[in-house]
Amino acid sequence: MSYQRIKTSQGGRGMELEKEIGLTNEYYLNNNLAVVHKKPTPVTIVKVDYPKRSAAKITEAYFKIPSTTDYNGIYRTRYIDFEAKECASKTSFPLSSIHNHQLKHLQSVLNQGAIAFVIIRFTQLNQTYYVEAEKLLNYVSSTDKKSIPIQWFEENTHEIRYNYVKPVDYLEIINQLYF
Amino acid sequence: MSYQRIKTSQGGRGMELEKEIGLTNEYYLNNNLAVVHKKPTPVTIVKVDYPKRSAAKITEAYFKIPSTTDYNGIYRTRYIDFEAKECASKTSFPLSSIHNHQLKHLQSVLNQGAIAFVIIRFTQLNQTYYVEAEKLLNYVSSTDKKSIPIQWFEENTHEIRYNYVKPVDYLEIINQLYF
Repeated sequence: MSYQRIKTSQGGRGMELEKEIGLTNEYYLNNNLAVVHKKPTPVTIVKVDYPKRSAAKITEAYFKIPSTTDYNGIYRTRYIDFEAKECASKTSFPLSSIHNHQLKHLQSVLNQGAIAFVIIRFTQLNQTYYVEAEKLLNYVSSTDKKSIPIQWFEENTHEIRYNYVKPVDYLEIINQLYF
Repeated sequence: MSYQRIKTSQGGRGMELEKEIGLTNEYYLNNNLAVVHKKPTPVTIVKVDYPKRSAAKITEAYFKIPSTTDYNGIYRTRYIDFEAKECASKTSFPLSSIHNHQLKHLQSVLNQGAIAFVIIRFTQLNQTYYVEAEKLLNYVSSTDKKSIPIQWFEENTHEIRYNYVKPVDYLEIINQLYF
């Protein structure tokens, strides 16, 4: 199972993490553990056709830069909010992967008392980390570097272990940290 | 000001409530009161063109039925979740306006301890109501009727008064009910 996961991850599709988080969220929802959804991809719709007898068809639209993170929801009365990123490098995570809007959003929800984090997967190393937003924001504001070395993740963050029914079981980390 | 609002509401665009909630959320965000965003419209993207030297262009996409509500976020550590609907009738609100998925979603987040509600505006009456999700779900499960009469709103829900800087000030009601 784990081997299969590595293989598809390295297939270069870059969406494996998203798919696994989707399965995890579905498991949480079906077992009444948490309600967390991925937000739809933000697009600007320019043109829509309304053909007779069939569904409205969008014929011109563009991708927008997201102003928030991709995931949010509720777990045991707490608001949770996170972003997920895959990283192809074996040695460091490029900060350009996360938009400034998203960092600002994470700070705003932290100010309201959220549980906020970023899930970062090093696909070549097959390691997935739960990074507390507080720590990431501190790192970013205290450095001019453009990437975070893998050592920092090993020392400052929490590895999420692979689980068959809930592949990216981030609630396990949240339980340790907050409950 | 109030007159202007009525005029544009009756213009039939049907998006006035959404616009006013957007302004309200912006006010809350800029004043560090709450972080609430509208989710992007869910679309299924079928075809994307990648022209040289310009942005990727979506040339075929379709609207999807939303599986959750349109708005969620955080206020004073609490997760909040709501849907907003305009209603053209003066006498009743048609239940067909709210998808079954959305009712189910409201029940799921309530089970986790959310503050969940629906904002319903009777555009012809210029009345906007904050309807607790618990009350709406009880009503729906105890009736075979296809609409809710205006009297029910007057007796069981909370009218949101218009405010110039925060046109749909739902936090005022939340403060009364939960804090």
